[in-house]
Amino acid sequence: MSHTKAYAAYDATSPLRDFELQRRELGPKDVQIEILYCGVCHSDIHQVRNEWGNSIYPMVPGHEIVGRVTGVGSDVTKFKEGDLAGVGCLVDSCRECPKCKEGLEQYCEGGSVGTYNALERDGKTVTYGGYSKQIVTTEDFVLKVSEKLDLQAVAPLLCAGITTYSPLRHWGITKGHKVGVLGLGGLGHMAVKFAVSFGAEVTMLSHSPSKETDARRLGAHRFALTSNEETIKSLANHFDFIIDTVSAPHDYNVYLGMLNTNGVMICVGAPPAPAQIPAFNLIFQRRSIAGSLIGGIPETQEMLDYCAEHNIVSDVEVIAMKDINEAYERMMKGDVKYRFVIDLATL
Amino acid sequence: MSHTKAYAAYDATSPLRDFELQRRELGPKDVQIEILYCGVCHSDIHQVRNEWGNSIYPMVPGHEIVGRVTGVGSDVTKFKEGDLAGVGCLVDSCRECPKCKEGLEQYCEGGSVGTYNALERDGKTVTYGGYSKQIVTTEDFVLKVSEKLDLQAVAPLLCAGITTYSPLRHWGITKGHKVGVLGLGGLGHMAVKFAVSFGAEVTMLSHSPSKETDARRLGAHRFALTSNEETIKSLANHFDFIIDTVSAPHDYNVYLGMLNTNGVMICVGAPPAPAQIPAFNLIFQRRSIAGSLIGGIPETQEMLDYCAEHNIVSDVEVIAMKDINEAYERMMKGDVKYRFVIDLATL
Repeated sequence: MSHTKAYAAYDATSPLRDFELQRRELGPKDVQIEILYCGVCHSDIHQVRNEWGNSIYPMVPGHEIVGRVTGVGSDVTKFKEGDLAGVGCLVDSCRECPKCKEGLEQYCEGGSVGTYNALERDGKTVTYGGYSKQIVTTEDFVLKVSEKLDLQAVAPLLCAGITTYSPLRHWGITKGHKVGVLGLGGLGHMAVKFAVSFGAEVTMLSHSPSKETDARRLGAHRFALTSNEETIKSLANHFDFIIDTVSAPHDYNVYLGMLNTNGVMICVGAPPAPAQIPAFNLIFQRRSIAGSLIGGIPETQEMLDYCAEHNIVSDVEVIAMKDINEAYERMMKGDVKYRFVIDLATL
Repeated sequence: MSHTKAYAAYDATSPLRDFELQRRELGPKDVQIEILYCGVCHSDIHQVRNEWGNSIYPMVPGHEIVGRVTGVGSDVTKFKEGDLAGVGCLVDSCRECPKCKEGLEQYCEGGSVGTYNALERDGKTVTYGGYSKQIVTTEDFVLKVSEKLDLQAVAPLLCAGITTYSPLRHWGITKGHKVGVLGLGGLGHMAVKFAVSFGAEVTMLSHSPSKETDARRLGAHRFALTSNEETIKSLANHFDFIIDTVSAPHDYNVYLGMLNTNGVMICVGAPPAPAQIPAFNLIFQRRSIAGSLIGGIPETQEMLDYCAEHNIVSDVEVIAMKDINEAYERMMKGDVKYRFVIDLATL
């Protein structure tokens, strides 16, 4: 067991503050990682504040983890001391169900294990995330990270990156496709980068004119102001795909109307209230609305390798650990371009 | 112009009664068909009663038309006098947009023309449907009908048949797929027959135990009582596809929960109120909900040919024209197995 400095939420309303946790002793298949950077995901706030009703306190959030390997178990084959490594949203799964065997651990039937605010497969050990100095995880859920990229900007790829990469790959988005990206935040800015990289014609859909410059800088070919009625009309039946990254309440039907025949609206954001969708809005033009959850371990590795090859990282603002509470407040106002990343050297 | 006996709705509330309409003179590309049978679709009732708010009176409903060719224009190549022929939900479209060129006239961008309660491409001539003795239609929207099948049972294939055949084909449903069919009516009973014929393992989903015998007779391999909590639980993550034929209000989330990873719920029924769907119900297991509208002309012909080859027809109850108002009342109570078909000899 090793004492590890961390930052934790002690309940749903108090600011996060110092915490000390125990990481398990290195098992034969385990990798010990000194955490260098950890991205701050919107779901950290949801869980810290118990907005999903399943919070376990004290909670150490963080599932966009990158760092350097400081120890490996006797049976570890993929990593050695000194390697860069990453941990994303999952640290274990049943390994036996058809989904796990297919590398779709995020859809594990036996119950995958979240990197924090979850119980290990033993049903009792609480998992603690990346707002901490080190983590011990089975090598099967540790990702290789290239030395070529800016490490602090790699961290958000472990959640924001794979959450957008995976559906774009699953639905085969490529050259010739017209893709709309709804929402320019942590997920949205990665969706733009990936969709552009895959060859699609990408339109940023936003109700704020101030986003246009940045959207174009990120690679979007077009910018559409969704507060403009004429713009909405002009986009009727236009897109093959819309990636909807918005977690705030919004009218899905406005965007369904922009889908061409066979078009798919892919939701990776989850607003608090159900979508209200008249069946006719799907029936006309044979449209679909779908969801997608992060990505499996093999695909996360594929994404990291793709990013290293194509020099894709997240746009980040690095903060000290002590500034996390203020960062949460700024995220609530959408005031971050586009992901906060904690420098764990400050802890 | 030829005088044609028909039955019409004169307003949203009065019973249908005798009407006389004019069919246009035979143009060079036109086919004149003596209507022998016409199926009664639920959308006939919606439109007769102006439930979609777009009704034009007097209205002659009916878009499941079969009969015999009694005349052809000088440039007609596909039909000759004496042939059996069918007309479905559409009698024209713009013929120029990408959808029309792909044979997806139902998604025509220029505006397809419904067989009744619509305006021709001239923007003024009202279309009248199959509750009449004859129809004149361009050969491009007339279907060939095999002499091998029971003609009265072929009529409903023109709408109920293609509406279920098309999505099953579009989503590639075949051997190895687990398919749920929700609702055992005009559409549902055809969905069961086609899905079974395509090799899928088919489960009828119904809240009424009285449907089991018939579901199995139609070919369903399993019957699941959706009023039973245990049954619902046992079907969690079970289906690859669910064909939802229900137009009455229902909770989509019960059935979304039965979809396996990548599962698709395909809506061909349109309840009056919007579906309420929490994004998480799509995000977990990467599920989709989609819609599908009838089918294009080439696919409708393909479906009719498939039915002739595999001896598939609709289960029908033949009625006299004068009994249409009573038939509507019985349909409202679900009291028909599974499609009323009007024998136009009775008009």
